[in-house]
Amino acid sequence: MSLYPAALENLIRQLSRLPGIGPKTAERLALHLLRAPEEQCQALAAGITQMKTTIGLCSRCGGLSDQSLCRICRNPSRDHGVLCVVEQPADMVALEKSDAFKGCYHILHGALSPMDGVGPDQIRLKELFLRVGQEGVTEVVLATGTSLEGEATAAYIAEQLKDLDIKLTRIASGVPVGGDLKFIDQVTLKRAMETRHAF
Amino acid sequence: MSLYPAALENLIRQLSRLPGIGPKTAERLALHLLRAPEEQCQALAAGITQMKTTIGLCSRCGGLSDQSLCRICRNPSRDHGVLCVVEQPADMVALEKSDAFKGCYHILHGALSPMDGVGPDQIRLKELFLRVGQEGVTEVVLATGTSLEGEATAAYIAEQLKDLDIKLTRIASGVPVGGDLKFIDQVTLKRAMETRHAF
Repeated sequence: MSLYPAALENLIRQLSRLPGIGPKTAERLALHLLRAPEEQCQALAAGITQMKTTIGLCSRCGGLSDQSLCRICRNPSRDHGVLCVVEQPADMVALEKSDAFKGCYHILHGALSPMDGVGPDQIRLKELFLRVGQEGVTEVVLATGTSLEGEATAAYIAEQLKDLDIKLTRIASGVPVGGDLKFIDQVTLKRAMETRHAF
Repeated sequence: MSLYPAALENLIRQLSRLPGIGPKTAERLALHLLRAPEEQCQALAAGITQMKTTIGLCSRCGGLSDQSLCRICRNPSRDHGVLCVVEQPADMVALEKSDAFKGCYHILHGALSPMDGVGPDQIRLKELFLRVGQEGVTEVVLATGTSLEGEATAAYIAEQLKDLDIKLTRIASGVPVGGDLKFIDQVTLKRAMETRHAF
């Protein structure tokens, strides 16, 4: 039963396709946009279209970029000999925000997951091994997730690169800073204990 | 610090202007749209633009409409002698969903609120009194909200129409159907008791 005019019902339907936006929220957002200034709606619509047309992947690292090479790959002051391998562009952004890494990235756009049909050819692993061979890489930091798939992907990469003369590291997993031990799950605590280091 | 390409940062900014969408949610939505099929993004962008250009207000009731008269005002099988006064288009839709009303509506687009500078001239009251005089209205149902502003608006309308030979009614307020008495606030319970009726 369509109670709003067709164009509004259509917008509600389009908005409710977004993740985490149910029909009620979509209705609220659509009614908000209807009342919002023309410029704001135009800016949002144009923003969506523009984002889709201008953003592609960096030809080297696979990060999001509006140019052939992304800002980090173009930056001569970054250490191009250290590659940090992550699953998604958002992971790279999270690491950049932490300001703890001055090397370059390699974004896989996924993690190995045979159950979902994601094998080595479905993610950007070939490109990683090519870069390691060509770019004079001295260290590969495995920063895939700590999920089963992330761990499997890290293990796979480590196995493939083990015979090369490069340093292979894995980001630490353990108790989050400020985390209360009694609220941390057992697997994390076990890992934190196993990978304990000299104080 | 802009870590995503400019077009993506722009979309995140536009999305976070929506009500209830914080920067984190906006980032998640933008990244979702970036991965989503081209058609879906185009449909969303077009939906926003189209909604803004095609939807206006019904010249009679003030409801949302893509034509000069809305679907309800155009419908000859509705009772055009009974007007239900509501604050917002969404209120009208909620009443329509309940399927309990076969008359026509009048949407005020607001409620009296002197503190916010909303007087009788800022909402569609003049249009209401004009309709009551011209359209052979026999009953006006006051269905403004039960907030202070909604009650004040209902009282104002009742005062203005009291000398005319029309029936004036107010939607009941009381315990919601299925509501547990012990969780209902005191003001609502007081009202429910005061407006009790023969069983």
